[in-house]
Amino acid sequence: MITLYRSPGSCALASHIALEEAGADYTTVRIDFASGQQRSDAYLKVNPKGRVPALVTDRGVLTETPALLAFIAQNFPAARLAPLDDPFAFARVQEFNSFLCSTLHIAHAHRMRGHRWSDDPAAHEAMRRFVPQSVGAAWELVENTMFAGPWVMGDAYTICDPYLFTLARWMEGDGIDPARFPKVLNHRNRMAERPSVQKALAVEAG
Amino acid sequence: MITLYRSPGSCALASHIALEEAGADYTTVRIDFASGQQRSDAYLKVNPKGRVPALVTDRGVLTETPALLAFIAQNFPAARLAPLDDPFAFARVQEFNSFLCSTLHIAHAHRMRGHRWSDDPAAHEAMRRFVPQSVGAAWELVENTMFAGPWVMGDAYTICDPYLFTLARWMEGDGIDPARFPKVLNHRNRMAERPSVQKALAVEAG
Repeated sequence: MITLYRSPGSCALASHIALEEAGADYTTVRIDFASGQQRSDAYLKVNPKGRVPALVTDRGVLTETPALLAFIAQNFPAARLAPLDDPFAFARVQEFNSFLCSTLHIAHAHRMRGHRWSDDPAAHEAMRRFVPQSVGAAWELVENTMFAGPWVMGDAYTICDPYLFTLARWMEGDGIDPARFPKVLNHRNRMAERPSVQKALAVEAG
Repeated sequence: MITLYRSPGSCALASHIALEEAGADYTTVRIDFASGQQRSDAYLKVNPKGRVPALVTDRGVLTETPALLAFIAQNFPAARLAPLDDPFAFARVQEFNSFLCSTLHIAHAHRMRGHRWSDDPAAHEAMRRFVPQSVGAAWELVENTMFAGPWVMGDAYTICDPYLFTLARWMEGDGIDPARFPKVLNHRNRMAERPSVQKALAVEAG
């Protein structure tokens, strides 16, 4: 049994969808960010970083979305969620996920989490103002240079797809008009129709 | 033949060391950041993100350090640079590298590259001031919760080690006293003695 620690609206949704699509035997635990549960002693014992997602397995705890997604793909090979037998193709998957993690998600985080990088409220406000520009530039790279179509990597659905979907749901909140990015928007709409995605979103809403 | 695009002092050093330790047939090309070569039309054709590292292979170009490191480990399995046959152990490697990429490196980047997240010079200065605190907190997590020893993952040397070494060289510039982190400092000193590291550093200095 695998347990995913998650928070609604967070990037943990990507791993949640991937677990569902992998056919994994898993459960999820909601961490309540509004009450600061991610910084509680109990949760810091699970993940000393005080973040989600965290994946508790019988071998130990794993964190960091790109690592979780690759683990799910490798641990459930029958689900064919990544090109596991081709190091170059697998690296393309990882390159995409690493960009979402370290560039797109980070740019987004400057809207609400400026305290990670400054203790000056004026700087937080300056970061917040800039989010449409920095996040927009990252989406331009995805739309114009990274998205093969119909899925992120081309004909094969991979662990890149739930991750892209998860971050694409943040566009409007970041002041981005999704219509600027028709490939990503079309992908978001198609993802929303998948039963795995609907199930994960229903659990988040529940 | 593989070609690594790199810049001295950048995180490309991690992939450079890994290629050397993999026994890869490779060459490197220096991109001159001082003259803005990373934004030149010629380089943007290699990597539209205008960053290093970029790895040119006969299959195409790969970017993002965690993806490159895993690719090098998988493409040169005889070098045993990662636990390739154990999805959980491989995920631990990836978790570590993802943290360096998306938390430690990002915190560091706020010292010199605040323009990525704001257009306000006062905010850039506020970010710069906070770097010892944010980078220091990330190093505390590495020292206290992530470093198994003697190598990052324990007895086995992996692709985590050149990445840790590369970022640990930034400590003093970030206003961090390495003596606060004895495990990481000891690791940095041992890494500096490896012929592969000395060779890569000599190429950077040349």
